[in-house]
Amino acid sequence: MPTYAAPVKDTLYVLQDVLEIGRYANLPGFANASPDVVEAILGEAGKFSAEVLQPLNKIGDEAGCKRNDDGSVTTPPGFKEAYKQYCEAGWPTLTAPEEYGGQGLPQVIGTAIGEYVLSANHSFEMYQGLTSGAIATLIIKGSDDQKRTYLPNMVTGRWTGTMNLTEPHCGTDLGLLKTRADPMPDGSHAITGTKIFISSGEHDMAENIVHMVLAKIAGAPDTVKGISLFVVPKFLIKEDGSIGERNRVSCGALEKKMGIHGNSTCVMNYDGAKGWLVGEPEKGLAAMFIMMNAARLGVGLQGLAQGEVAYQNAVQYARDRRQGKALKPEEREEGARADPLFVHPDVRRMLMQMRCWNEGSRALVLWGSLQVDLMRRSQSEEERQSADDLVSLLTPVIKGYLTDKGFETAVLAQQVFGGHGYIREHGVEQFVRDARIAQIYEGTNGIQAMDLVGRKLPKDGGRAVRALFELIGSEIKESKAAGDPAGVAAALEPALADLQAATMWLAQNGVQDPNNAGAGAYSYMNLMGLVSFGWMWLRMARVSARALDDGSQDRQFHEAKLATARFYADRELPESTSHRRKVEAGAESVMALPEEVF
Amino acid sequence: MPTYAAPVKDTLYVLQDVLEIGRYANLPGFANASPDVVEAILGEAGKFSAEVLQPLNKIGDEAGCKRNDDGSVTTPPGFKEAYKQYCEAGWPTLTAPEEYGGQGLPQVIGTAIGEYVLSANHSFEMYQGLTSGAIATLIIKGSDDQKRTYLPNMVTGRWTGTMNLTEPHCGTDLGLLKTRADPMPDGSHAITGTKIFISSGEHDMAENIVHMVLAKIAGAPDTVKGISLFVVPKFLIKEDGSIGERNRVSCGALEKKMGIHGNSTCVMNYDGAKGWLVGEPEKGLAAMFIMMNAARLGVGLQGLAQGEVAYQNAVQYARDRRQGKALKPEEREEGARADPLFVHPDVRRMLMQMRCWNEGSRALVLWGSLQVDLMRRSQSEEERQSADDLVSLLTPVIKGYLTDKGFETAVLAQQVFGGHGYIREHGVEQFVRDARIAQIYEGTNGIQAMDLVGRKLPKDGGRAVRALFELIGSEIKESKAAGDPAGVAAALEPALADLQAATMWLAQNGVQDPNNAGAGAYSYMNLMGLVSFGWMWLRMARVSARALDDGSQDRQFHEAKLATARFYADRELPESTSHRRKVEAGAESVMALPEEVF
Repeated sequence: MPTYAAPVKDTLYVLQDVLEIGRYANLPGFANASPDVVEAILGEAGKFSAEVLQPLNKIGDEAGCKRNDDGSVTTPPGFKEAYKQYCEAGWPTLTAPEEYGGQGLPQVIGTAIGEYVLSANHSFEMYQGLTSGAIATLIIKGSDDQKRTYLPNMVTGRWTGTMNLTEPHCGTDLGLLKTRADPMPDGSHAITGTKIFISSGEHDMAENIVHMVLAKIAGAPDTVKGISLFVVPKFLIKEDGSIGERNRVSCGALEKKMGIHGNSTCVMNYDGAKGWLVGEPEKGLAAMFIMMNAARLGVGLQGLAQGEVAYQNAVQYARDRRQGKALKPEEREEGARADPLFVHPDVRRMLMQMRCWNEGSRALVLWGSLQVDLMRRSQSEEERQSADDLVSLLTPVIKGYLTDKGFETAVLAQQVFGGHGYIREHGVEQFVRDARIAQIYEGTNGIQAMDLVGRKLPKDGGRAVRALFELIGSEIKESKAAGDPAGVAAALEPALADLQAATMWLAQNGVQDPNNAGAGAYSYMNLMGLVSFGWMWLRMARVSARALDDGSQDRQFHEAKLATARFYADRELPESTSHRRKVEAGAESVMALPEEVF
Repeated sequence: MPTYAAPVKDTLYVLQDVLEIGRYANLPGFANASPDVVEAILGEAGKFSAEVLQPLNKIGDEAGCKRNDDGSVTTPPGFKEAYKQYCEAGWPTLTAPEEYGGQGLPQVIGTAIGEYVLSANHSFEMYQGLTSGAIATLIIKGSDDQKRTYLPNMVTGRWTGTMNLTEPHCGTDLGLLKTRADPMPDGSHAITGTKIFISSGEHDMAENIVHMVLAKIAGAPDTVKGISLFVVPKFLIKEDGSIGERNRVSCGALEKKMGIHGNSTCVMNYDGAKGWLVGEPEKGLAAMFIMMNAARLGVGLQGLAQGEVAYQNAVQYARDRRQGKALKPEEREEGARADPLFVHPDVRRMLMQMRCWNEGSRALVLWGSLQVDLMRRSQSEEERQSADDLVSLLTPVIKGYLTDKGFETAVLAQQVFGGHGYIREHGVEQFVRDARIAQIYEGTNGIQAMDLVGRKLPKDGGRAVRALFELIGSEIKESKAAGDPAGVAAALEPALADLQAATMWLAQNGVQDPNNAGAGAYSYMNLMGLVSFGWMWLRMARVSARALDDGSQDRQFHEAKLATARFYADRELPESTSHRRKVEAGAESVMALPEEVF
């Protein structure tokens, strides 16, 4: 059976030593996030995840969800009870605004805890996880009445939320959507259409489900500009706020999937369901993007989460399993017929690779969440703008790169297990199947790359990317001045130069032929991800070198950080050159072959 | 539903234009492989694969195999009937020696056909595929009596074969195996022990199953040097060659796996089963390696096969699915609400990537099989030796690199499908799950890398690798002299230089510290795979450029080859630098972290 222990110590290191969240104690919510409170919260969340949620992960995979004849959906054994406990412990309220019953803690704390929940049980997390996005959208775009009606119960987790975008013929290209909204005399709309791939669309864990649905109002342009957003509850809400009659929305089928079997992925049929417009008509896409951006950081987090749990299990297996002997006689265990897998350099290579990606991912996604907090809560307009610029730029990278690395990590972990990783028993093949979805949903990673190159780079004349380069460049200088711990600065400098050159190349060649931008987008995203992790390792190497200089009691921890940073510098950063060359190769050889020849 | 059409045209191109098998018409078996015969055989095999085997692939995945209470195993619906047809058509006899009822055709033709069968139905192929290895072993190591007893029925496919190496506590490290063989008065041995992960260990498709089993004879050294090989039939054979009583070997359980559900992966219990020594006692490992080496080329072929079918389905989906519009207005379809996925450069990038890997894989694995033929059949001692050297060197690369690329290709194909690739309906997620095993079994790809670096490189003072470098180097020169079609020579030259430098580095630093060899082995294997594909693209570019110069009627085909070669040169070969740098980074940062810190 797979095991899991929340990496609380590493999270605390990132929050307190690397991101220094203590510096923001003057901001709303941060004051409540004192070091001891944060440590207690992380500890509790880790415990709950490991003890309650993780044991249900394999059960969820094996039992899956069942759609009953009446269209109701039964979640895997134990999920409903665990969700009840989860809500009773108040976990859904953590980062929600206090005025709706939340605890108002910073998003960065929510992200830290989200990792544990996701590592323990990805499918379970999605029942509540998508609710956060729906809450954020209602807070920003909803009417006062809508906020009053929905938010308090969503914040406690009694009601969950969904996002309804995709239809059978339209995924990425939302302009094609056919779901229509007909205005009704009472001010509501009758929503009619079919939505697919709706995560947590129907289930038995919450008293109500609040669907956020994209549709076109009769007469609106039949393009992306004609899309409006509606809130459509599973059960209508009575005047007194209690649950009323069933709305005309139902689950038509459950999808059979490669993984995340514990989550109900629904075909949702809207058959004149009552819905209420959220925000202005025909501005649905902008509203949806509030949800999408939060969701994309959350999906990046899923990459890390699957990578972390896969890594932990691979480490355990490499310790327990004995096979072959160390290449160097002096490293062999005396009298043993075989040494643990750990002694083999190629196994160690895989473990180090996973480790440097996971710790890099954790630092980057928490950094991103902190920017979200600063963007919302900072008292300085300049700091808000800067945080907004940086996190907007890097959101597609966090989504795309972290999920790619999360999947690769799960695959590597499976490889450490050898044949035992291919059979179900050890649970590691589930990590591979579950991790795979994160590269696909909320915009495939190819779409993230296009968003990065086509939208985020040129925005505001490239202000964000220039700021990022300046920031990383100045930290490289500082690190060099401080003796360049673990040699990260020396390795990151040419990688940053490659990224800058690739950026320049795209700026010059992407406008004249947009296919150049499209053909290089994915390699560019990889290059920016590589450099962003390098930037985090630069920070971590400096922080840990300083801690050692300052006589830290925890030498082993900081020495491990420096060793992992060195691995990243030696073995990962050299990839910058080939990414750059792929960008600079342009569209020609990518587009040369005519379609009919394929 | 997934589709498949055998790439007969490309196979013929590789066999006839690139490898020029016509040059070997003087060798045994090759005389029968005239161009029209080969074309007819490939056409028939492709048809059978596409029409009979491919429709069973998804059924096999969904139904899986069932172990009945009496220990018998029922294969998925349709498998048994298809196998009967397969044998009746004589497919298993194709490359088997004529003296045992085979057709004696070259291995390279068997490999060509094997690709189609594997693309259509990986799980199905494994029932017969492992039999070939067992046949090869019996031919080389078996007694005349054993050959007479087993081979004729194995050659026709009436009986199938298995390989029994792995035990619960020992996979790679065969020295640990516990299965024992007690000599019996009648000259047989009583085999007792448990073997796991036995593909096709028990099933209902053949009249008998011939297990090749590794065990230690009582009193033998309890190390890898004490291993002997035994042949253990499921049913004992009577004097007259007919099936006799049941042997004491049975299937204890079926493994639940990530993929290849259509194949029965068995726990096999040997409970004093009657077995007969094959070859000399305590020389079992050498005998097993005959099987292993053939099997490793076959597993490399599985990588290609999964990549090819995944690619074909992705191409079809990219044609059919419309989503978004072309970046360049002039490439948009007039009046259409959305263009096919094909117009998007990032989709095209994925398709070209798959294409250049598949075609490179096909050329390399067929080249490898031709070497096996030359090694066995050439009349020149020098040519036999050279073929043996080259294929021995590149066998771990073909196994490791082709299966890595096959898996990556399947993952890319799934990515082209977006969300529709994650659900079961389109069948593409099955390709991902099925492709994954090939990176693991017959020695994980990490083991292949170690075999390459630790055994194959230094063998005979590096004779094989020097010959390979010389061969590629001289072909680069020739190609340059011929105008360097598609620019492959110019791109391959520095990649070859990186490979040579990395080889030199390993030679110098791997002996003084073997962990340097171990830490760099995987990157080295990738580098050699990259260069080997580049070598094949160099050849294909020259062949196709020449065909165009000679006024070939099939301009489109050869122009596509050149465009794909250009893509490989532009977008793949630049990776050589980072592989080399990873090798040269050595073991230090890989091994720095003490085990207890993980």
